[in-house]
Parts: sequence; structure tokens; C-alpha cells
Amino acid sequence: MNDAFNPALLVRPDLEGLVPYEVHIHHNVIKLDANENPYDFPPAVREEIGRELVNLTVTRYPDPLAGELVARLSAYTGVPAEGILAGNGSDELILTLLLTFGTGGRVIITPPTFSMYGVHARIAGARPVDVPRRENFALDVPAIIAAAGHPETRVIFLCSPNNPTGNATPLEEVAEILKNTRALVVVDEAYQEFGGKSSIPLLREYPNLVVLRTFSKAFGLAGLRVGYLLADPAVIKQLLRTKQPFNLNSFSQLAACKVMEHREEFNRLIGQIRQDREELYREMAALPGVEVYPSAANFILFRTRRPAEQVYQELLANGILIRNVHGPGVEQCLRVTVGKKDENRLFLEKLKMILGLQEVGENKFAAESGRS
Amino acid sequence: MNDAFNPALLVRPDLEGLVPYEVHIHHNVIKLDANENPYDFPPAVREEIGRELVNLTVTRYPDPLAGELVARLSAYTGVPAEGILAGNGSDELILTLLLTFGTGGRVIITPPTFSMYGVHARIAGARPVDVPRRENFALDVPAIIAAAGHPETRVIFLCSPNNPTGNATPLEEVAEILKNTRALVVVDEAYQEFGGKSSIPLLREYPNLVVLRTFSKAFGLAGLRVGYLLADPAVIKQLLRTKQPFNLNSFSQLAACKVMEHREEFNRLIGQIRQDREELYREMAALPGVEVYPSAANFILFRTRRPAEQVYQELLANGILIRNVHGPGVEQCLRVTVGKKDENRLFLEKLKMILGLQEVGENKFAAESGRS
Repeated sequence: MNDAFNPALLVRPDLEGLVPYEVHIHHNVIKLDANENPYDFPPAVREEIGRELVNLTVTRYPDPLAGELVARLSAYTGVPAEGILAGNGSDELILTLLLTFGTGGRVIITPPTFSMYGVHARIAGARPVDVPRRENFALDVPAIIAAAGHPETRVIFLCSPNNPTGNATPLEEVAEILKNTRALVVVDEAYQEFGGKSSIPLLREYPNLVVLRTFSKAFGLAGLRVGYLLADPAVIKQLLRTKQPFNLNSFSQLAACKVMEHREEFNRLIGQIRQDREELYREMAALPGVEVYPSAANFILFRTRRPAEQVYQELLANGILIRNVHGPGVEQCLRVTVGKKDENRLFLEKLKMILGLQEVGENKFAAESGRS
Repeated sequence: MNDAFNPALLVRPDLEGLVPYEVHIHHNVIKLDANENPYDFPPAVREEIGRELVNLTVTRYPDPLAGELVARLSAYTGVPAEGILAGNGSDELILTLLLTFGTGGRVIITPPTFSMYGVHARIAGARPVDVPRRENFALDVPAIIAAAGHPETRVIFLCSPNNPTGNATPLEEVAEILKNTRALVVVDEAYQEFGGKSSIPLLREYPNLVVLRTFSKAFGLAGLRVGYLLADPAVIKQLLRTKQPFNLNSFSQLAACKVMEHREEFNRLIGQIRQDREELYREMAALPGVEVYPSAANFILFRTRRPAEQVYQELLANGILIRNVHGPGVEQCLRVTVGKKDENRLFLEKLKMILGLQEVGENKFAAESGRS
């Protein structure tokens, strides 16, 4: 009977056409594509983690509720421990949220935004409903509230600051949505440390709010996959029904604790990134033919007069990896992560060259005149 | 509107009554409850991991396909790299399998067995169908094949050696099932290093076979959550549609690579555990009124004349944590993990005491006479 076995026929029909999250791997390039923290992990913190590794019992299952980390997150966010859930990156928590509340219902997504909300909604057997952002990337609040009125709407995903557009949603708009729906409103604050106002203060008033956070961006732990969410304890209780019991490994729990202990070191780096973002924004905005969007995150969305794919490929050929952003509302847009100063400078230099705004080589005069 | 918010009403109705995996946390006890490797992680391997930690780039996202680990697993298992997928523990891979193939269909489970197949089937929106094992815990192969004939059957979970019963399924029976179904047959070999025959050689012949493995048991990495599966590359390709892109963190990838490099050290510990299991089995089998089941794993299922919960609680009060196994076919059964020699000895001593087979205290003569 097995001659006929074809896993493509056995797969769920409702995954038809689902495009998995694309991971582009390139070696020996300047990585300005994944909104990671560009700085080396602080050596002192690394050494302390290394020292504690000796006492880490890897042979036993990890603490399923990451108690020590949650206690530190409670001190950091001001949210009681009962309202905090840690996960294997915020990706896992998005899936857990959708498998608990979304399956069989509708999930509101506000494109252009992070693609995983839609992908995970489909994987969880929920129906993603798009409520597009306005032309300036602000939320269309009345349209979201209207869509939320559908009795099958279970979850609404808002990303603030939004990936890939960079703008943050004012708290009044988040509150306006929370006030007018019984659905769960998930505010993904993956980039909140870089700007915008956190929705955390709204948690007291709105039991249907979930704030999603990550250690992958500001806190430099993308490789260790640590995310967390803040919510009403009654919401957390429901999430525990579907959460993988041992979702977050012991080492990542330890490393995230150490990051919390040394937060001032990361705050310094975050301050540097915010400053460099402003500088990069100003320089890009000064380039003729380059349209740049203001950002409260650690990346900048922009558009040139040339096709995005060509610019992307030519930058890559010059050793710089950024992101070619697809989709409605961000046609021909590119997204560049704010890197270290010299990385940003090199990116700018190569971008100018590719756009014909600067001559190649050391000839300063030619370069200057090419700019005008 | 938010006065009315109740997350219990927003949760998927089909999760009603779902009992999450229970994690019992007790401190300062001898842990013989979770089938972990009882030995300290080999210090030399730990030191090597610590040294390599210095070069680990935690600030960047991990390799989504865990390339280096997969290459080592390929050498270990003889399965080509295209047929290997690593995960955040085999738990995550069970969910990924079910979300890819199970949702909306039927999933065959053979209780008494590992509870997560049923839990994850329900979370994935699949219908778990029980095909109970025979009284001696062997699979009811004709009944499985009959149930697999239902057009909605998508996945069959077999656990070999089976948790919590300890018996392994002969390869002929696995092959018989594979031959007679178009469903995906997942053989969970979490305990295979401790005994029984691996189904890996059947992979060549049967493209509908998936072999599931873990580093949590024999390889002492329960805390770091590393699992993997072996399957036809066409099956892996489908799984990549639903897999979390960055599911396995960089540190766990590194640690699992190091374990593979130092396999002989773990093989020595595995040999010791197998030997101690046989000794523990013989000693338990010699106790009057204690029914013991033979095991090919690193745990032993047994039953006494007293209620299981009482024995469980009294052992716990004496500092020994084992597992009270519930459910049809294993009524009043307990499961004890094979620990280190002194842990096994202490467990036996306390068990005898609780069962009134041995006097408390140092009186050797009383202890001996109590035994007969």
C-alpha cells in the first residue's frame, strides 16, 4: 500500500498555499536584516553566565514556569508574577495564544505587519482577517472595532512599534480598541525598548489585554529564544492548558535572568541604537529619491526609485544584507536594521553607490558632487 | 464592555476538560519520577561546552535547521540529513507533526502510553482514537490496522519502549502496521538507547514512518530540550510548513553536538543504567505481593497490594519521588525511574518498609527476616 504514500496528500488541506517564514542565510555579510542587537553580548555578563553554567543541572527537566525569570520580569515590568508567562521566543507564545483562543475563530491582523500572526493563525486553524493600516501606517481603529464585532472574532494582533513600518500606536488607540471588544487584544511590543509607549499600564484596566515581549531585540538573546507575555492571571491560566510543559530550557532561563540583572548595560546599548537610528534616518532622508519612514524601533523602512529587489540584491553583492519587504502597503519597500556606527556608515555608502548618488572609490570630490 | 470579559468563555470550546500535563515539583527529594538520566552531566563535556560558549553568538537568531547538529545526528543514525528535523524537545515535534498532519483528522493512540500524544492531538484539533494495548501491554496490531482503515486516520503513535509500561514493540509488528496503512506511523523511541530494537532500518522501506528521538533521557539533556525526528525527506518538507522557524536555540544545538562528540561517555552511563535496571527488577520481583513488569527502558512499572496513591505519598514523605501512573490498563500502578545505585537501594529499602516487608532501623537481622 505504501507505493501510494504521498505526504503532500496527507497534509491538512487548509495549509494549502501557506508560505512558511522565510529565513535567508548568507555568510560573511553585514547582517542588517533581522532587527537583532548588533553589539557583542556584554563580555562581563557572558562570563557570569559561563560561571553559573557549572551549577546548572542540565540532566533534569527545566522549571516549567520559569519561576526565577518570572520573578525578575515582575520586578522589571511591575506586573505580578501570576500575570507573566515565559516562552521559547515570542513566536511560541503567539502560537500558544492562537491555539488557546484562536482555533476555529477569527483573528484580526493589521497589515503591513509581522507575518507570523497570519502564519500561526492558519497553523492554529483560525481564520486571519486583515484590517489594513492607513496609508501612514496608523491603525484604522474604527475598522478594527467593526471587524471585532463579528461574533467569531477571538484575538486581535497589534504590533507597536510595528514591524516593518516602525511606527508606534498611541495608547489612546489601544485603549479605544480594548474598550470596544470582548476579544483578546495582543499588543506585540517586541521593539518597545527602542520607542513608543508601552501598553503595560493598561493591563490594570483591561483584562482582555495581552502584552507580548521578547529578549531577541533590545536584550541581545535572539539565539536563546526567550519571550514572555503579560496578561490577566485568568488569561494565563487558560494558556497553561495548551502550553508545552517544558517550553523554555534551563540555560535560556538562566541567561535571561542574568540579562535582567545587568539591565543597565543593555540600556546603554539601547540608548546608542536609538541615537544611531536618528542619525541614520536623517542621512537617509537627505538622499534624493529616497523615501524614509520615521521609526520608534531599531530598523528603518524606506523606498527608493529603483525596484526593491534590485537594491536588495546589489546591497547583498556588496556584503550588506537587509530585508526586502513584500506585501500591500509596503510595495517596493526595504527594511534596514540599525547596526553599529560603522555598519550604518557602510550601508549608507553602498546604498548611495547603488542609487548612483556617489562614485565608487576614494575620490571625495566625485563622491560629494555625485550627491547633489 | 469589559466587565463581561471572561477568558474561560473565549477559550476554544473543544479544549473543555483537557487536562494539561502535570508537573509535580518537590524539592530535596530523590527524583525517580521523570525518567531523567540520574548521573551528573560528564564534567569534561560540560567544560568543553563552557569553553565553546565564549564563541557562541547569542545575539543572532539560531540556525533554523540546526545544520551542524543534524550532520552529527546523520552520522549517529545513518539517516541522511534531509531526513532529520531537530526540535525544542520531542514534545514540540509531536505538536508539529499533529499540526501538519493531524488537525481535523483522527490520531490513533495506544494506551496505556505517554499522555502527550492525546493532549497534543486535542490541542491540534485532531480526534484521538484509543486502541488499547493487550493485557500484557503488547500492541493490538489487528485492531490498530482496522482503526487505521478509517479514511480520516492521519497519524498513529507507537511508543517503543513504551512509557509507562516499559515493553518494546517487535519490529515485525511495526512493519505490519506500516505495510497496512497510508497514515503516518510515528514510533517514539525516547527510551530506545536503553533497550528494544530501533525502527530506523524500516525507514528505507516505509516512507510513512517517522522515528522520534530525544536527548532528554539517555543523553542527559532534559533541561536543554533537544529532540529530533527521522523521516522521509518529503515528510520533513511538509513539517517545515508549520515548524516554528527558530525553534531550537543556539546553546542547545551546541550542547547536543558536544554530546554526540562524546557519545562513548554516555554509552558507559547507559550501560550502567541498563545493568542497574536488571538488578532493581530482580530485587523488586523478589518482594512478596509486588507485581513488576519487565522493562527495556530506564524505568520500571510495578503494582503492590496497597493503593498506589498511598505508596506514592509514603515514599514521598520518605524523600523519594516516583510517579503514580493513572489510567485504564495500569490501575494502581507506579513507575520508578532507575536511578544511581544508592538511590535504587534507598528506594527499595523505603518501599519494603512501607509495604511492611522490612523493619525500620539498623537491625540487619530484623530486616532480613522481614523480607521472607
